[in-house]
Amino acid sequence: MGAFITVDIGGTQIRAAAYPESGTQALAVRKTSTRAGHEKAFDRLVELIRSVFPRDGNVLSITVATPGPVDPQAGVIASAPNIPGWDNYPLRDKLEAAFHVPTHLGNDANLAALGEWRFGAAQGHAHLLYLTISTGIGGGVIVDNRLLLGARGLAAELGHLTVLPDGPVCSCGQRGHLEAVAAGPAIAAFVRDQLALGAVSSLGGASDLSARAVGQAAKQGDPLALRALARSGEYIGMALADFLAVFNPSIVIFGGGVSFSGELLLAPVRRSLGLRVMDQAYLEGLVITTAALGDNSGLLGGLALAHTLQPQVSA
Amino acid sequence: MGAFITVDIGGTQIRAAAYPESGTQALAVRKTSTRAGHEKAFDRLVELIRSVFPRDGNVLSITVATPGPVDPQAGVIASAPNIPGWDNYPLRDKLEAAFHVPTHLGNDANLAALGEWRFGAAQGHAHLLYLTISTGIGGGVIVDNRLLLGARGLAAELGHLTVLPDGPVCSCGQRGHLEAVAAGPAIAAFVRDQLALGAVSSLGGASDLSARAVGQAAKQGDPLALRALARSGEYIGMALADFLAVFNPSIVIFGGGVSFSGELLLAPVRRSLGLRVMDQAYLEGLVITTAALGDNSGLLGGLALAHTLQPQVSA
Repeated sequence: MGAFITVDIGGTQIRAAAYPESGTQALAVRKTSTRAGHEKAFDRLVELIRSVFPRDGNVLSITVATPGPVDPQAGVIASAPNIPGWDNYPLRDKLEAAFHVPTHLGNDANLAALGEWRFGAAQGHAHLLYLTISTGIGGGVIVDNRLLLGARGLAAELGHLTVLPDGPVCSCGQRGHLEAVAAGPAIAAFVRDQLALGAVSSLGGASDLSARAVGQAAKQGDPLALRALARSGEYIGMALADFLAVFNPSIVIFGGGVSFSGELLLAPVRRSLGLRVMDQAYLEGLVITTAALGDNSGLLGGLALAHTLQPQVSA
Repeated sequence: MGAFITVDIGGTQIRAAAYPESGTQALAVRKTSTRAGHEKAFDRLVELIRSVFPRDGNVLSITVATPGPVDPQAGVIASAPNIPGWDNYPLRDKLEAAFHVPTHLGNDANLAALGEWRFGAAQGHAHLLYLTISTGIGGGVIVDNRLLLGARGLAAELGHLTVLPDGPVCSCGQRGHLEAVAAGPAIAAFVRDQLALGAVSSLGGASDLSARAVGQAAKQGDPLALRALARSGEYIGMALADFLAVFNPSIVIFGGGVSFSGELLLAPVRRSLGLRVMDQAYLEGLVITTAALGDNSGLLGGLALAHTLQPQVSA
């Protein structure tokens, strides 16, 4: 029996898992730090993959989820946050040379969408919109049971929709994108600004204010933290009105750290969406929910891709 | 040999054509007015289709392009501009009852995209974005050689992307959509406003100012008309930056009356897009052009759908 190996390259750690030919129960999971001294990231990745390799050496494929833009057809990483030197990096060919196993790359948010569609909250839905809200905002879209990739694999960059022309600068350099006004750093910045203006909050004494801390304070009922989440949710709802008109999905799934706030974020999203949607028909039967796969979305998304590319195998 | 019948329901006229099993040369084309006194639109449609019916009665399918929202799976028109009473109208079932021929409905902009992909400017492109700019702004998207429809056939409403939050009211009732700031009526309104403010233009004496008149004046070098087109092009370029990040197409096609202005509109679109696109990688190899099928886009788009649904037949 063959195994699937999947790898999730995150901002702080790289995880690798081996899965059996059938099912989603990992045979082995290992992790390492993304940045680690002088050792090269590629060598560390090879060692990590070797550590989950089955003893019989029978591996059907290796799938790698990467956080930045990637060309899945060419197997090239355009750039990888936190890994200096991985620009236009032919990771697929390098891994295939190392392991002699068919290897596939995918954007992590794209693969998370595929994972939710195959194993998670979107099972049975042919049209899925997935948004991951954390330090940035990533997207993944399933159209008619297929992952939207675009001509060069650069599609579904949903965090870079313009919601506030001439608004704050985004990580990409443009202005007013959803990511720039609604992701974790924007939530933390709003709270900092309001504290500076004299707002009262349990977050007042925090030295390093993070979106995670804001989420925790919101759960305790902190009014400023709740306002910060509601503001983020309002922008997300505005973007979602656009995305519904563009994709008409039957389910919208939120992943990423910020979505752990659950209804504290989603209720404002729904309210804003209800005000902005161009026609109520888009809301009929629409499911809006949080991701089911959590931290394993990258690994299981990779497994979903492996299954998709090897369709004789079933979950 | 069987024939395909296709129908294009426009704002002012309904056209029907019969095509041979192979090729795009119509065997017959007839038209009638969309509004015509007391006679019912459906009865007039049936008579029109009958007028292009081949003598041997061998019709493989009937395809109808409609200007408003439509559910292609259910065969129901949600609403049709200029046809009172066609709300949630089961046109497919009614035509199948009348002609006993398999019948398909599609949104006209969606079908125009399919027509350009199969017979027009987008042949050989797997990822197409089509925008028709006239009284409104319609959209059609081909993803991986398939028409984007969404869960209920309501996808690709590209004219309803928000580009100016709290901007002018759109035909759908929401504010600041691309259609509200860049379609024909917005172009004419801009010129009227500028004339009222004292702008000098050859359009000054016009009693009923239309986007068509603005386009003609722009071709004569009228500065105000050129500014009006450039303003529309700038908004379209802003929206296009968003659409590229979302779909990563290899070709963008502009149809509709306003696009007859050609480079007078497209040059500002390209300039605006170049300033706003999140990454130059989206522009590499990207074709931006005008539609090749012109007035026949609805009829030939219907033919493309008929071919797609009857894949043993080739163009």
